[in-house]
Amino acid sequence: AGRRHVVDAMRALGLAVTIDRIGNVYARREGRDPRAKPVMMGSHIDSVATAGRFDGCLGVLGGLEVVRTLNDARHVTRRPIVVAFFTEEEGARFSTDMLGSAVATKRIALDRAWALTDRAGKSVKSELEAIGFLGEAPVELDPPHAYVECHVEQGPVLRAANVDIGVVTGVQAIAWHELVITGRSAHAGTTPMELRRDPGMAAARIQLYLRAMVLSGRYTKQLRATVGVTQYSPGLVNVVPNRVQMTVDVRHPDDEVLKKALGELVPFYGKVAEEERVEVQHKVTARTPNIAFAPRVQELVLKHAEGRGLSFKKIVSGAGHDAQEMAAVCPAGMVFVPGEYEGISHNPREYSTKEQCANGVNVMLDVVTELAEEEGV
Amino acid sequence: AGRRHVVDAMRALGLAVTIDRIGNVYARREGRDPRAKPVMMGSHIDSVATAGRFDGCLGVLGGLEVVRTLNDARHVTRRPIVVAFFTEEEGARFSTDMLGSAVATKRIALDRAWALTDRAGKSVKSELEAIGFLGEAPVELDPPHAYVECHVEQGPVLRAANVDIGVVTGVQAIAWHELVITGRSAHAGTTPMELRRDPGMAAARIQLYLRAMVLSGRYTKQLRATVGVTQYSPGLVNVVPNRVQMTVDVRHPDDEVLKKALGELVPFYGKVAEEERVEVQHKVTARTPNIAFAPRVQELVLKHAEGRGLSFKKIVSGAGHDAQEMAAVCPAGMVFVPGEYEGISHNPREYSTKEQCANGVNVMLDVVTELAEEEGV
Repeated sequence: AGRRHVVDAMRALGLAVTIDRIGNVYARREGRDPRAKPVMMGSHIDSVATAGRFDGCLGVLGGLEVVRTLNDARHVTRRPIVVAFFTEEEGARFSTDMLGSAVATKRIALDRAWALTDRAGKSVKSELEAIGFLGEAPVELDPPHAYVECHVEQGPVLRAANVDIGVVTGVQAIAWHELVITGRSAHAGTTPMELRRDPGMAAARIQLYLRAMVLSGRYTKQLRATVGVTQYSPGLVNVVPNRVQMTVDVRHPDDEVLKKALGELVPFYGKVAEEERVEVQHKVTARTPNIAFAPRVQELVLKHAEGRGLSFKKIVSGAGHDAQEMAAVCPAGMVFVPGEYEGISHNPREYSTKEQCANGVNVMLDVVTELAEEEGV
Repeated sequence: AGRRHVVDAMRALGLAVTIDRIGNVYARREGRDPRAKPVMMGSHIDSVATAGRFDGCLGVLGGLEVVRTLNDARHVTRRPIVVAFFTEEEGARFSTDMLGSAVATKRIALDRAWALTDRAGKSVKSELEAIGFLGEAPVELDPPHAYVECHVEQGPVLRAANVDIGVVTGVQAIAWHELVITGRSAHAGTTPMELRRDPGMAAARIQLYLRAMVLSGRYTKQLRATVGVTQYSPGLVNVVPNRVQMTVDVRHPDDEVLKKALGELVPFYGKVAEEERVEVQHKVTARTPNIAFAPRVQELVLKHAEGRGLSFKKIVSGAGHDAQEMAAVCPAGMVFVPGEYEGISHNPREYSTKEQCANGVNVMLDVVTELAEEEGV
């Protein structure tokens, strides 16, 4: 329903909508020079289960507002302008984040993406087909002239510094592990502790170890570590579990530091397995190095924030974004806006004021308008 | 299907089957004196998700084997003999163990039992109705003359002592807590540790604290503590959870010691809640004191084990059993048989040899035959 709603909004603005083989949606406004590569704005409209209303949507609906503003002003840019939303940026359903933009920029093969399944065993391809978003357009993106994404910071930094705009220098390095810990189910009332092989004990130790790693400061204060999933099987009050499934999310702005942290963490999995007499298998479900955004786009964001009398600050993104995939094929950058309540995100309380959002989208308007006049193909 | 299978087996032995309002099934063999109260054998045929084949079924099918033996010998006892199986002994689906026998012996009201729901929201009553086991017979049990249950030990003691028969003196005290820990969902990549309210950290600390309590020896080596369920919500790799549901199972042969252990545990919930800035709510979903079985039944089990040249040992049951509910209304007792592989139970590897099972059922035959000749109404 969200996809249809945004596509309707795109068409209402007179944009030509195309849908590709992975369900990415592109809405194009023609420029004066039809041979020139477009300037693209984009983000995502999918969300996590406990999402707020801003993560992703701000960049897409903000992009449409930029088009609306240009339409109202009857301003035609030299280059075409495209507003895009990408499939499954959160990875919340099919376990691979930035999926749509990663396929469009060739990091992930289409067949592999199509074959991913959700917890009910349904595949990306069959689900796209079911909702009418398995498009006809080729998935490989013709690289645009540049890509700009406006997004909420999803952290406390900008708001605490009382700053209007974040000039995003890049995205931190990310690693996701999916752990399956196998022990032995046993009767809770009878089995002595020393005869147990309880995968729950291993899971609890890993959970607490991650926090201790962060708080130790060994990897600077910028390390983040999270266990988002822990699920016991068979999951009965009077049965020692035989299996725990859990996820680990570790991030750092510097890939070298993240590597060192993972170099401590993975051996700890083995140590816990041995000590608890369980098996710990870990699968790397995501691993991206830190990404640096194009200096040219950073310059323009900074310049136009200044031009509008807005305060700004350079910032590294803690979250992954479609912009980091686009950075592989064209100059890309991001505009961050502050969030209230310590920038809480992935939570219904996520909130940025109208003014905060408008500041970000206005800067994006200026950046895109300037990029869209640049020379060349 | 299991219920229909056992009912068919009961009828094939010529027994009169009645089903009560909570789905308990009673199969009666008449005696010489129709006014005398029956001797009852029973157990359960429900199981946990990772069950073996012996827990519960041994007592029910063993009871039918006793009847078959008496039939073959054309032996009619003075008192009637009843073989019963009780609904939802494990509590695996509707969260309350010994449900059927507790309703039959008036510890739990029928209306309350009927209203219990499973994870899909289906009620005990509607599910009994759906499978054709919402019987017509009154649920309140007319107390039998005595009750005997043969069961696997579900622990390592008898096998390690190389003993054939456990003379069960009673059942240990049990407490179940269902915990809901509420924190605040947040973005995994951006939210600094010090701004998190992560219920997963609280859950991990409680998990490890329980084991430390047991291993400390403060409550003797007989304390058992288990976390069988831990489930994070929303359960996404890149979201700090906002809610963890978990269960705690604590047991001890002495109710006074269990009380002391709970007196340490419950304040720890509060301490963790405060330190982790989360809310920890706990609901007591089961609480039974230790039960002592009737000396008369214990004597008979011991006597007939000896009479058959079997070795035996007095033992406290670590698990809860229907016999403890029956103990509230009549002399009740249990015959334990050893289990292989350290007595592992609630696991598909649960295994007792044919000889081990036959020993237990033979002792039950002798005990029941003697009880069934006893004088009086």
